Amino acid sequence: MMEKKYAVVVAGGRGERMTSTVPKQFLVLGGLPILMHTLKTFNEADPKIKLILVLPVSEILFWKQLCIQYDFQIDHLLIEGGTTRFHSVKNGLDQIDEAGLVAIHDGVRPLVSTKMIHEAFVTAEVHGNAIPALQITESLRHVANGKSTSLDRNHYFLVQTPQCFKSDLLKKAYDQTYVETFTDDASVVEAMGETIHLIKGARLNIKITTPEDLLIAEVYLKETNNN
Amino acid sequence: MMEKKYAVVVAGGRGERMTSTVPKQFLVLGGLPILMHTLKTFNEADPKIKLILVLPVSEILFWKQLCIQYDFQIDHLLIEGGTTRFHSVKNGLDQIDEAGLVAIHDGVRPLVSTKMIHEAFVTAEVHGNAIPALQITESLRHVANGKSTSLDRNHYFLVQTPQCFKSDLLKKAYDQTYVETFTDDASVVEAMGETIHLIKGARLNIKITTPEDLLIAEVYLKETNNN
Repeated sequence: MMEKKYAVVVAGGRGERMTSTVPKQFLVLGGLPILMHTLKTFNEADPKIKLILVLPVSEILFWKQLCIQYDFQIDHLLIEGGTTRFHSVKNGLDQIDEAGLVAIHDGVRPLVSTKMIHEAFVTAEVHGNAIPALQITESLRHVANGKSTSLDRNHYFLVQTPQCFKSDLLKKAYDQTYVETFTDDASVVEAMGETIHLIKGARLNIKITTPEDLLIAEVYLKETNNN
Repeated sequence: MMEKKYAVVVAGGRGERMTSTVPKQFLVLGGLPILMHTLKTFNEADPKIKLILVLPVSEILFWKQLCIQYDFQIDHLLIEGGTTRFHSVKNGLDQIDEAGLVAIHDGVRPLVSTKMIHEAFVTAEVHGNAIPALQITESLRHVANGKSTSLDRNHYFLVQTPQCFKSDLLKKAYDQTYVETFTDDASVVEAMGETIHLIKGARLNIKITTPEDLLIAEVYLKETNNN
């Protein structure tokens, strides 16, 4: 692959669901803050990926101090986030000058594999985009106006990150006006009329949003290291 | 509550997704086979709940030996399962002679709380049924004919067990001819035209289907015991 590669890692969450006052992306997992695991894995997947980290302005200094404390040497561009995830991604994309491929990734998904990162980039180069999605294995119900109905779970997938795109395409998509249904990058690109290309998600690629998630991540991390 | 209470615990899964050759319901969690945790919690919720355990015929003897080995004293009726979950539940329901309330529960959900069991029974007494459901917190896509579209996740819920019903209603529902869309008890009852009443599910109430799930369950079990 000859195209230039970028990864925009967003970590703007306030962590309201965590009991800790430290935003979840900074919590320590297996001896290292979550966000460092995330950046480290992208760097391991390909050291040529240009890393763009988007953080709330209030967390910039804390992060810089963490990098010193942990002697974190992986090169990355540090950018201020916006009021929503959409605006944070947009700020990250503004840093991309040379066209190529860009992966957008949740900072609180530290257990992403280098394999999935590779697959996302390779698939996006061919199809324009690549979105990891995981089939739902539990029974599913649709709820509207206080009434619920059973659904065929075989047709429903949970979306993960990294979501990878041709950068020109994604930058154009992010020029659209923000609406609340933009919960991920695929929905933003789809609103422009693009067809979304799914790749296989991974159960282990969890998003850490609760104290239990952190414990699960510890378990998974040990598993991964043993393999 | 004066109505008679039953719990049909089904554990017919072959455990194809587990690397262990022992069916997952017998795997040891915190020193006790998963299925014993499950039965124990129903017994703790209310010792008057009549427990009906449905197992594949090939596992009956193994279970009996486990009960001796672990000196498992909780009284339960042991019934042979059918070819699908539907048929196993039906076999369990056939044991109910006196009308009351019945909870159907996945044997491989050992972390169900006594609180949720209580709520399911109380709600089913009032509304005819009570189905625990958990709101989806990740982005969701619908896939059909090779194309996927973004959905508003706020309208979608993952269904858990125990699913609790007035026993007459559930027995009548299970007299219907089996179809593949019957993935849980709510879908069977709904097919009869009944309105389904959702109660709040719990993240910790996981279904153990993979080796990682067992590790997660160990973590959750420790958490639960510490609280």
